[in-house]
Amino acid sequence: MTRNITEQLTPATVDFGKPGKQIGVFHVPLSAHDDAWGVVPVPVAVIGNGEGPTVILEGGNHGDEYEGPIALGEMIRDLRPEDIQGRLIFIPAINQPAVNSALRTSPIDGINMNRTFPGDPLGTTTRQIAAYVNDVLFPMGDVFIDLHSGGSSLDIIPSSVIEPGRTPEQHAANVAAAQAFGAPIAVVIDNRGDPRTATASAALAGMTVIGTEMAGGGTVSIDALALCRRGIRNVLAHVGVLPASAASQVEKASKLYELTALAHVISEDDGVFEPMHRLGTEVVAGELAGRIHFLTQPGRTPVDLQYRASGMVYGRRQPGRVRPGNCCLVVATPYERHDA
Amino acid sequence: MTRNITEQLTPATVDFGKPGKQIGVFHVPLSAHDDAWGVVPVPVAVIGNGEGPTVILEGGNHGDEYEGPIALGEMIRDLRPEDIQGRLIFIPAINQPAVNSALRTSPIDGINMNRTFPGDPLGTTTRQIAAYVNDVLFPMGDVFIDLHSGGSSLDIIPSSVIEPGRTPEQHAANVAAAQAFGAPIAVVIDNRGDPRTATASAALAGMTVIGTEMAGGGTVSIDALALCRRGIRNVLAHVGVLPASAASQVEKASKLYELTALAHVISEDDGVFEPMHRLGTEVVAGELAGRIHFLTQPGRTPVDLQYRASGMVYGRRQPGRVRPGNCCLVVATPYERHDA
Amino acid sequence: MTRNITEQLTPATVDFGKPGKQIGVFHVPLSAHDDAWGVVPVPVAVIGNGEGPTVILEGGNHGDEYEGPIALGEMIRDLRPEDIQGRLIFIPAINQPAVNSALRTSPIDGINMNRTFPGDPLGTTTRQIAAYVNDVLFPMGDVFIDLHSGGSSLDIIPSSVIEPGRTPEQHAANVAAAQAFGAPIAVVIDNRGDPRTATASAALAGMTVIGTEMAGGGTVSIDALALCRRGIRNVLAHVGVLPASAASQVEKASKLYELTALAHVISEDDGVFEPMHRLGTEVVAGELAGRIHFLTQPGRTPVDLQYRASGMVYGRRQPGRVRPGNCCLVVATPYERHDA
Amino acid sequence: MTRNITEQLTPATVDFGKPGKQIGVFHVPLSAHDDAWGVVPVPVAVIGNGEGPTVILEGGNHGDEYEGPIALGEMIRDLRPEDIQGRLIFIPAINQPAVNSALRTSPIDGINMNRTFPGDPLGTTTRQIAAYVNDVLFPMGDVFIDLHSGGSSLDIIPSSVIEPGRTPEQHAANVAAAQAFGAPIAVVIDNRGDPRTATASAALAGMTVIGTEMAGGGTVSIDALALCRRGIRNVLAHVGVLPASAASQVEKASKLYELTALAHVISEDDGVFEPMHRLGTEVVAGELAGRIHFLTQPGRTPVDLQYRASGMVYGRRQPGRVRPGNCCLVVATPYERHDA
Amino acid sequence: MTRNITEQLTPATVDFGKPGKQIGVFHVPLSAHDDAWGVVPVPVAVIGNGEGPTVILEGGNHGDEYEGPIALGEMIRDLRPEDIQGRLIFIPAINQPAVNSALRTSPIDGINMNRTFPGDPLGTTTRQIAAYVNDVLFPMGDVFIDLHSGGSSLDIIPSSVIEPGRTPEQHAANVAAAQAFGAPIAVVIDNRGDPRTATASAALAGMTVIGTEMAGGGTVSIDALALCRRGIRNVLAHVGVLPASAASQVEKASKLYELTALAHVISEDDGVFEPMHRLGTEVVAGELAGRIHFLTQPGRTPVDLQYRASGMVYGRRQPGRVRPGNCCLVVATPYERHDA
Amino acid sequence: MTRNITEQLTPATVDFGKPGKQIGVFHVPLSAHDDAWGVVPVPVAVIGNGEGPTVILEGGNHGDEYEGPIALGEMIRDLRPEDIQGRLIFIPAINQPAVNSALRTSPIDGINMNRTFPGDPLGTTTRQIAAYVNDVLFPMGDVFIDLHSGGSSLDIIPSSVIEPGRTPEQHAANVAAAQAFGAPIAVVIDNRGDPRTATASAALAGMTVIGTEMAGGGTVSIDALALCRRGIRNVLAHVGVLPASAASQVEKASKLYELTALAHVISEDDGVFEPMHRLGTEVVAGELAGRIHFLTQPGRTPVDLQYRASGMVYGRRQPGRVRPGNCCLVVATPYERHDA
Repeated sequence: MTRNITEQLTPATVDFGKPGKQIGVFHVPLSAHDDAWGVVPVPVAVIGNGEGPTVILEGGNHGDEYEGPIALGEMIRDLRPEDIQGRLIFIPAINQPAVNSALRTSPIDGINMNRTFPGDPLGTTTRQIAAYVNDVLFPMGDVFIDLHSGGSSLDIIPSSVIEPGRTPEQHAANVAAAQAFGAPIAVVIDNRGDPRTATASAALAGMTVIGTEMAGGGTVSIDALALCRRGIRNVLAHVGVLPASAASQVEKASKLYELTALAHVISEDDGVFEPMHRLGTEVVAGELAGRIHFLTQPGRTPVDLQYRASGMVYGRRQPGRVRPGNCCLVVATPYERHDA
Repeated sequence: MTRNITEQLTPATVDFGKPGKQIGVFHVPLSAHDDAWGVVPVPVAVIGNGEGPTVILEGGNHGDEYEGPIALGEMIRDLRPEDIQGRLIFIPAINQPAVNSALRTSPIDGINMNRTFPGDPLGTTTRQIAAYVNDVLFPMGDVFIDLHSGGSSLDIIPSSVIEPGRTPEQHAANVAAAQAFGAPIAVVIDNRGDPRTATASAALAGMTVIGTEMAGGGTVSIDALALCRRGIRNVLAHVGVLPASAASQVEKASKLYELTALAHVISEDDGVFEPMHRLGTEVVAGELAGRIHFLTQPGRTPVDLQYRASGMVYGRRQPGRVRPGNCCLVVATPYERHDA
Repeated sequence: MTRNITEQLTPATVDFGKPGKQIGVFHVPLSAHDDAWGVVPVPVAVIGNGEGPTVILEGGNHGDEYEGPIALGEMIRDLRPEDIQGRLIFIPAINQPAVNSALRTSPIDGINMNRTFPGDPLGTTTRQIAAYVNDVLFPMGDVFIDLHSGGSSLDIIPSSVIEPGRTPEQHAANVAAAQAFGAPIAVVIDNRGDPRTATASAALAGMTVIGTEMAGGGTVSIDALALCRRGIRNVLAHVGVLPASAASQVEKASKLYELTALAHVISEDDGVFEPMHRLGTEVVAGELAGRIHFLTQPGRTPVDLQYRASGMVYGRRQPGRVRPGNCCLVVATPYERHDA
Repeated sequence: MTRNITEQLTPATVDFGKPGKQIGVFHVPLSAHDDAWGVVPVPVAVIGNGEGPTVILEGGNHGDEYEGPIALGEMIRDLRPEDIQGRLIFIPAINQPAVNSALRTSPIDGINMNRTFPGDPLGTTTRQIAAYVNDVLFPMGDVFIDLHSGGSSLDIIPSSVIEPGRTPEQHAANVAAAQAFGAPIAVVIDNRGDPRTATASAALAGMTVIGTEMAGGGTVSIDALALCRRGIRNVLAHVGVLPASAASQVEKASKLYELTALAHVISEDDGVFEPMHRLGTEVVAGELAGRIHFLTQPGRTPVDLQYRASGMVYGRRQPGRVRPGNCCLVVATPYERHDA
Repeated sequence: MTRNITEQLTPATVDFGKPGKQIGVFHVPLSAHDDAWGVVPVPVAVIGNGEGPTVILEGGNHGDEYEGPIALGEMIRDLRPEDIQGRLIFIPAINQPAVNSALRTSPIDGINMNRTFPGDPLGTTTRQIAAYVNDVLFPMGDVFIDLHSGGSSLDIIPSSVIEPGRTPEQHAANVAAAQAFGAPIAVVIDNRGDPRTATASAALAGMTVIGTEMAGGGTVSIDALALCRRGIRNVLAHVGVLPASAASQVEKASKLYELTALAHVISEDDGVFEPMHRLGTEVVAGELAGRIHFLTQPGRTPVDLQYRASGMVYGRRQPGRVRPGNCCLVVATPYERHDA
Repeated sequence: MTRNITEQLTPATVDFGKPGKQIGVFHVPLSAHDDAWGVVPVPVAVIGNGEGPTVILEGGNHGDEYEGPIALGEMIRDLRPEDIQGRLIFIPAINQPAVNSALRTSPIDGINMNRTFPGDPLGTTTRQIAAYVNDVLFPMGDVFIDLHSGGSSLDIIPSSVIEPGRTPEQHAANVAAAQAFGAPIAVVIDNRGDPRTATASAALAGMTVIGTEMAGGGTVSIDALALCRRGIRNVLAHVGVLPASAASQVEKASKLYELTALAHVISEDDGVFEPMHRLGTEVVAGELAGRIHFLTQPGRTPVDLQYRASGMVYGRRQPGRVRPGNCCLVVATPYERHDA
């Protein structure tokens, strides 16, 4: 029933059941001061050809993560229906208002799309978008690809991300798909079990789920974009929508990591953060991780920060300025418990 | 007379004429809604010992450029008077309100400190700070070191910056000091002759002037910070305030470049910028420099951008999001006209 | 039970059961930074005299729509109890904070009152107001008059609005009341079935419901205000609260229209909108409806917009500046399915 | 089950079951634009020693009320485990973002913490904090002390506050604890039965509950702070966590008052409020309470305000500027119905 | 000398001395937080052919006035060099940041461009733009056409505007040019002698000057746009840049009016303004002009406003909401003193 | 000449040369986005009767200081021309936009009126108001009374303020007038010689000048308002505009103090300020003045602040929250150098 009201309030200009290529939008109603009868037009595309799985490809969940949306836009423009077997549903800028504003969170309701699923068709804009994707699109899908980067606040080693499966089978499928992506590393990230992410909702809907983290810093990384372009095709070949020949040669299987409860180095002070190590460095718990400097009080001694976990420096904060609670560094730990 | 009113309105807690080390502030009056009788406390330090030149070291001209202020803070805490000959005057966070807010421009009056010199003792806060530095401190100095980084919007190859001299002698001294810094490259930047920068005012006051650009992206670069720490000591040894032994070995003389009128690649569109080359790549005028993508209109073809000058990619825009007028790339051209 | 907590938290200074005229407020508690123990005082008035239906008259649902609140204020001041039979409950500025700010949506919680019903007595201010009206006032009413105008973003042909009835009887009553209003046209608007409007909630509560759209542009229209003054009295005479003699002569029955799913012409671009036709012009689907100009890129060719439905131009966007998703024009289509 | 997800998403750095003194935080996840993987670190401390009741002491529910947080910080630093019998759990700045911003309501989600209980572990930050306190901490407690002051908008006679008990026993315990505090007066405040306050939730959880109002005006009152320091120790001695010798001599039992439905004098105008009487003055209903002046219209006669209840002037608005709905004065009425 | 620094800091991509058509920009440097080395690109175009006067056509002085910029953009795209004799210099969106934001004043420095002339090449962005136009372009011009509309706050009868001349000859030329425009009325507006408008500066520079007011309300008027298109060509034919055949037939000479010191009806209250008469109505001083309603205080009697001058209602406030000092109505008085 | 353009641009509705009582405004033109042809209406009143000095009485220089404007409004309404000898010119809310917003500084241009004199008739609004007062009104005056209170950020002992005279005669007159006011103390405040205050400009214009500080905290003080009402009449009697009988009995001559360069206790930290002493306490330099608490870091030891001067605690910061540079306390020192 939520699906009924969702479809009624949110019309799309494409027919997801039709073969061929269509590029359009779905219209989320938004009755705002400067546009009483307006809509938020969320771009969507569908390419269908014959039998085969349906893959939903999403980018722009956060509006300041660019590699995914760029790569999806190129596929939308370049792929011909005859290139595929099955169906591709693209949502390249799912949080359209955030993408237009280059913000992680929506400028309309201030909400982080990735803490919003399964959404609400009668909620605010971000919730209405999530409801459309969850209620209308997810039931059509077999595979879900959720393309993130580090965003404005984080710089992360380009990698695929493994959503923990709800069943051993799903977990194995998620790991296999993440490895098919072909990044140097693949990282299990469970967000402490938060059920409100797009990937958690997709997993709950029974799909095979794969995510990414592609550099960040609010910029476009030349290397991460190249990896992203290759990785998406690798996954589509892995699930049979593209022919095997479309996949690029992957030299070495992705090394598996996970983020544990001690992965994050958190600032307790207000200052400017200086890291001690570059991304990819091996570090041990207790080692000096960085320093907080107090630039307008030059007489004050900087404060030291230590790592809490051993492993590899996986991510770092981009803005130098930190406040208490800010995540300065993230350490990824080798992942032992994977499916065998 | 402007100097008189400046000193009267802006008391300092240190005595610049006294030998030894003092760390303090100068108080710029600010009568604001939430503090009728308050001040902006701009940190300042002085270390004096015997005869020798006076070097004024400034950081935090823009509040989101961190390597300079960090390195200056370390020197303020670590240097002993007996380590030097002459006098060091530190202004490590000259735009104190901007540094506290991690903004290029002041949150109080919205002004870019580096388009404000020579300031105004009866103007707004940024102008009052500039007036103090220009009217009270500059007359004490022989050498001025102005430590910039790329800031939130630019990522730049770490380099020293040459302020064009007002006389051939001053120009030669500026070039020599920039080379003494020991960065791989040194770049002449004249800001189209804008007289409102700190270095332009310092040059007008007759000092030897040296600047820097240290990476950027609003973050702290491990490599640039290391270069900055070495470079400042190299310059101080060059001018005789530190002993020659304090300078680090510089393997190769800085290669000289300049920014010409065609250095900048400017966006004419509203979208997300993808660069084609990494910093340091040699490029030629007319070559494809980058593309502007339209993420929420995936059917729209990206727009190409070309280089306007030949040379080396010296800087790039950090935020992916661009609007018309934004500087996407900067190309540095080999500098031929230098003093010989 | 929600009604109990609503009444407990939201005291009114008038007694709705008492005959005679009372002008007062209901106090919605608001514990804000600048007023810890304050209230939002929503104006309300009641005029009661003998037997007869209870009519609830609401204005200011959006804070930038003025004809309704002006006309209701005049009735509150001018009508004497002996002029009527039954009871009139006025809520002339239901979204009081929005009316005081001349905004469509509330400055307190950013919410559109007309996407908020049935409200929540423990929610934010707009939800608490809606809960009071829905839980406490609607049960007292037989007829609900909801007076809208086009607001800041739309200019609309002055007209009465027909809320689709939940039963054939209610629908017939709604159509009859809308025609009694005496505007040249009456338009069925169903908001795609959105259940969160005041009129949808009132219809659900079993009342006869009538709405209006009175010009707009964020201004007071001399003509629309004159129509509004007459129309309200016409409706009150129609339902028997005012004597038949209070109604004005209506020359011609309102022509019936509806807004279909293709009524709205939506911009896909960022620019300035030039319409091709004045309000009231007959147009056909596919015809040129307007152009989007790019003022800061004078070399760029404007983009054409077409109508998607045939009918009459019923409304247009007031602000020239448009962004993707903005509603530029609305076409009303003759309504065939009305009660017979 | 809400407790499970709360604990999973919100880790604490202290072990509430361990004896001795620990000072730490609980981390509420906050994935914001400027910190994708950050947290809100809410300070918490626990001191445990042997058998005895568990007392939860909370300050900073509103971020502009200072006496409670100051007094709790001093106890956290000064109390030794051997000084007590039982356990003290401190949450001295429960609305950490609001305390850091000196705002009544949270700068993150705009919410008043004291209209948020019992919270929501999947809601916005303020709701997540409330959920942690309600779901994880309240079940550990026997006594809850909630330290408020008047905040930025109100100046109030320093007093203890009695939360109405859910049972006669709880009510008697609440009154006794409030009197043990030792303020000149103790006031029953029921917020019209609003169930969303911290004290209402604590009472529902079965604890003995005591509140305070300590001056206000957004400042630190020397007298109120002294009373607050004494009063907390008095209550801890009253419930047996501190020895009787830790209590200060209270000269006279607190006089009991209550706030009735007519306690508040509300402005209907936009102007500047001039009160007629100082706090503590005895007044009668109908008496002139104050005047609203129109400073930019000096020819306009001020508007008079009258008291609606008889009793003692208990609080007044601090900011001179008032708008319709602002609470200008609060009159406390002698409380007759207390337990006997 | 100000011209030298202006040209040095503000390069243009067109050569104003070259025949043929060029469309480009001039770049005003803007070193902002989000773009350290960026520019404001102000669009400019030039069409030159043989001998003849130079006409400077400006639109977008206020960013919410659209008829002028639309008509100028069309001319830029449509006119061929061979269509003209002389030179046309177009600045169709002089306040580019304001036009992009649809604001009267610049979003960068908050300044009204039309109170900024002659500008300052070292001032903020709006002042730098004005300096470029005043110092570089005005010396090239013989005729200046400044195309205004009423903007967001005013609705005005479409008309040409006469800038008072500095000499009788210039005055006569200005009146003749305004009449050539062909609007029903032409109005002398002197802004109380304020020297900071574009037209005042242009008059001071010795040019023949003509302005317009084209409807308003922040929207695009179909009728005013048609008049504007015709009027510009009429003026160009009048001064000989277009052939006489390019002018449209004007039925009746413009009637001349002026705005006297008593033209404006100013609100002294905070409320919603209801006008009594439509634009174009003849009124007399002392007559009821409008009423201020108090929508959230329905019991309060509205306040009456009277005209202060006799004449024709020339303009009215668009937003219903008014505050003290807002201009509600403007009355134009027949102009007697014109050149004879 | 600046006077000519000032008068031309800024018309007043009263005639300052006419006997009797007039209440009106002067209109400062303000062409803003929401009101293209509007004004800022600054209230002004004049009462004239026969021969005698002209006294200019000003309030609302800062918009959050209320005692002066209230007392002046009462005089404007209550005084009859026949009550006085000479002329009174009232500017009770000189910074009208700030008064309407309850802000120290203008919401229009962000400027502190009291750092703006002598103003600029072509500057922003605050500068235009100052120019009108300085250029048009000051030349009419013999005595200037400038009524300040502590405002939102300070609580100050009610006192008269002595502007240092430009000549010994003026100084003696200023001291005598300040003592005539009848406050317990009178304080010499020179703002470090800042020439931009209203009183400094008035002194430069040759008037006898008197100021006040009346409590503060952004509220209306019952005691300070009573003193203010009496004090103004005392001064008017002192200068002969009111009869001697209008003055109230002053028990004891005002004790004279001054603020020296060490008067202010400035915070160097970010926290919450707890003062040690009440206003009026005698303190000595070096004594503990207060503490800065860190409420969200309860484990951190508070920082102590010391007095820098000996004398009496004259003022304190009202908001508990402090940042580096905020003035926490002000100590007044006995004034020895007065005229003898």
